[in-house]
Amino acid sequence: MTEIKLGIAGLGTVAQGVLALIRRNGVLMTQRSGVSLRVVRIASRREKPEVDLMGARFSTDLDDLLNDPDVDVILELIGGEGVALDLIRRALASNTPVVTANKAVLAAHGNELMSGSGKQLLRFEASVAGAIPIIRSISDGLAANRLQSLFGIINGTCNYIFGEMEANGTPFDEVLAEAQRLGYAEADPSFDIDGVDAAHKLTILLALGFTGEYDLSAVHIEGIRHVTVADIQFAKELGYRIKHLGIIQNTDVGVEARVHCALVPSNALLANVNGVMNAVQVISDGAGETLFSGPGAGGEATASAVLSDTLDLGKRMATAADKEDSAAKGDMAEPSVIAPAILPMTDVSSANYLRIPTQDRPGVFAQVTQALSEFSISIDAAIQHEASASQPVVDIVLLTNAVVESAMNAALERLQGLDIVAADIVRLRVAPAL
Amino acid sequence: MTEIKLGIAGLGTVAQGVLALIRRNGVLMTQRSGVSLRVVRIASRREKPEVDLMGARFSTDLDDLLNDPDVDVILELIGGEGVALDLIRRALASNTPVVTANKAVLAAHGNELMSGSGKQLLRFEASVAGAIPIIRSISDGLAANRLQSLFGIINGTCNYIFGEMEANGTPFDEVLAEAQRLGYAEADPSFDIDGVDAAHKLTILLALGFTGEYDLSAVHIEGIRHVTVADIQFAKELGYRIKHLGIIQNTDVGVEARVHCALVPSNALLANVNGVMNAVQVISDGAGETLFSGPGAGGEATASAVLSDTLDLGKRMATAADKEDSAAKGDMAEPSVIAPAILPMTDVSSANYLRIPTQDRPGVFAQVTQALSEFSISIDAAIQHEASASQPVVDIVLLTNAVVESAMNAALERLQGLDIVAADIVRLRVAPAL
Repeated sequence: MTEIKLGIAGLGTVAQGVLALIRRNGVLMTQRSGVSLRVVRIASRREKPEVDLMGARFSTDLDDLLNDPDVDVILELIGGEGVALDLIRRALASNTPVVTANKAVLAAHGNELMSGSGKQLLRFEASVAGAIPIIRSISDGLAANRLQSLFGIINGTCNYIFGEMEANGTPFDEVLAEAQRLGYAEADPSFDIDGVDAAHKLTILLALGFTGEYDLSAVHIEGIRHVTVADIQFAKELGYRIKHLGIIQNTDVGVEARVHCALVPSNALLANVNGVMNAVQVISDGAGETLFSGPGAGGEATASAVLSDTLDLGKRMATAADKEDSAAKGDMAEPSVIAPAILPMTDVSSANYLRIPTQDRPGVFAQVTQALSEFSISIDAAIQHEASASQPVVDIVLLTNAVVESAMNAALERLQGLDIVAADIVRLRVAPAL
Repeated sequence: MTEIKLGIAGLGTVAQGVLALIRRNGVLMTQRSGVSLRVVRIASRREKPEVDLMGARFSTDLDDLLNDPDVDVILELIGGEGVALDLIRRALASNTPVVTANKAVLAAHGNELMSGSGKQLLRFEASVAGAIPIIRSISDGLAANRLQSLFGIINGTCNYIFGEMEANGTPFDEVLAEAQRLGYAEADPSFDIDGVDAAHKLTILLALGFTGEYDLSAVHIEGIRHVTVADIQFAKELGYRIKHLGIIQNTDVGVEARVHCALVPSNALLANVNGVMNAVQVISDGAGETLFSGPGAGGEATASAVLSDTLDLGKRMATAADKEDSAAKGDMAEPSVIAPAILPMTDVSSANYLRIPTQDRPGVFAQVTQALSEFSISIDAAIQHEASASQPVVDIVLLTNAVVESAMNAALERLQGLDIVAADIVRLRVAPAL
């Protein structure tokens, strides 16, 4: 049995989840892994914490974690790019392994942190999709495969909001307010509902499975604010559910990386991932279609991933002859190969859902299809319900064939300018065949 | 870079999948893991194979694998308990790591093989659910959790058959014949459709996540032959789909381990796993509900899992100072703890679906419910369609409350004996709340 002494930075819900799991399952973990985890030091700006620190020393100075010679592994559970980034940098520089749940710092500084010994010393299973062991599934479980594509529901807030809009017909703003009340959305929800959080996670998956480069700027980012209950209902009528997806596709001409709403066929497994759950579907050349789902957030769910990394590091430190031999401390798979080119969003092809609010006049449908045909866009399905006195504006809903983004954008500009179009057109992409 | 020299036993679809993946993705695997895989020897009873052996020596004598000093790791891809068991035993005795896809040998001999150095030397990701990295997800990804329950669609043949019966209303016998023609079912289908294959896999999951003991006899086994298209349709009307499940539940009074058909709510993720796909849902105290799905069989899908184990062994051998140091060769998590008691099937509680073919006479429904109430069984839902001249036998379909197996069995015997009951009653359990 090897004892691994932990220093924990932060004392929020994830850190408290780590303490709770060690307290409850510590004996079980040791029986399974031969590694005994002991928390020796906790540092947090929060004074006099009310949680049981399990005998760990406490301080409000993060430097104490770095200076304590007892600390074998640091768990960085502060989040964000400020002091957390500084702590990770200094720990790696002093050859101390770090386990983090911090997606923002990896998305922005992954190339730096994973260079040199970082590859062996830094673990981040908890940074993507909470409890789901997606990092190790890609790095190890699918290590023999070439990844072809990845589709992820990686923001639970967005998925919860769409679910409530669909179930109860409640408008976006009301559902968002309720989600904030329940703690599923932040007071400032922009990070989640404008797609930034999902883009951070997709950046990590992109580096790990496809390009080897952490490059947030390569990801096209859209949120969910423009989707209405009507869109969800029209999509259902067409046999789809609307999901906010992270999508990566390896194509002959480059890698697509994008975060946006997409129509997913109702009978696809991914369409049936509900509430705040996350899921990542990976399609690879040998293993085929694999899907991993689970809670994407929450104290103990995230702590489960943090501790899986910690136990793995511990097992490797136990087998390594010398604790100072950093090569033996870990072996996170190197990201793959020469980075292929990222495809600009304008070159990505998608089928599209269009909801076009129009004046109820004869010949409107023909004008719309005529405008689309000028851009060589054809129509695979259409819905138009009858107008009524109370509803003088009629939605024309179309599914187009697959068309390159630049052409669709030009067509949309043209359509929006037609005088029969009564309000903003809503455009959503259809997910590539899952 | 470390070169790992492989000896492969068998040259069937999985072995050919291993060769294909190494040929196609070998460079990628080395870039990711630092391990280079070279196949140096293949042994198979098949003479003059027509596949590209990638320069490996070939022989028809398995002993050559054991006697070749070049072989670092043996891939046992023969299957079954005969020569495969003997090969694994002898390899482990000589301290050679073995990767196997053989569920039968683990279910029957897991305790022996995983004792002593087997724990470090024997890997078997491919033995359960093909491409899905479920073994490492339980052993490593969820290592910090206490597992509460597990629900698995772990036989693709059964899942395919139910899917076809549902989609086209085709009777069981016809679907089975078609599945045999397509290669989804064996010429002798009993192993799949009577639940034995699923029980082998569940035995491995039971040992790994719950009891630490490989004990096939602890698993209650039922197949799918008794399910008709009518049952699938009635279940749908009640809001369920019928799946053949492996179920493990940790209860206060013991561990339930059972393989049988079960009604799963139609909106549950598990209900939407279709065709020959497999899926395993694991519920644990920290990570909550996690689900892993993917192809459960197929040459390259299974090879993906075999190679994930092989690369992992290779990485550990690379970091170990001494190749002979068996402790460093691997570190498959030890199964957990003191084995808890397995609950006898008679003590398991389930809600039940009953389809009772009855004579169309007044008072029949009352007689049925009266008989059930004598065993304190109440009814949560019922369907009875009108009789017709062409259909003088009427199905009464009931969902019962949760009731202990022994009481349900006694009630069924009583019901079957009623003179109004016109044919065999079909009884299916409802899956525990997912």
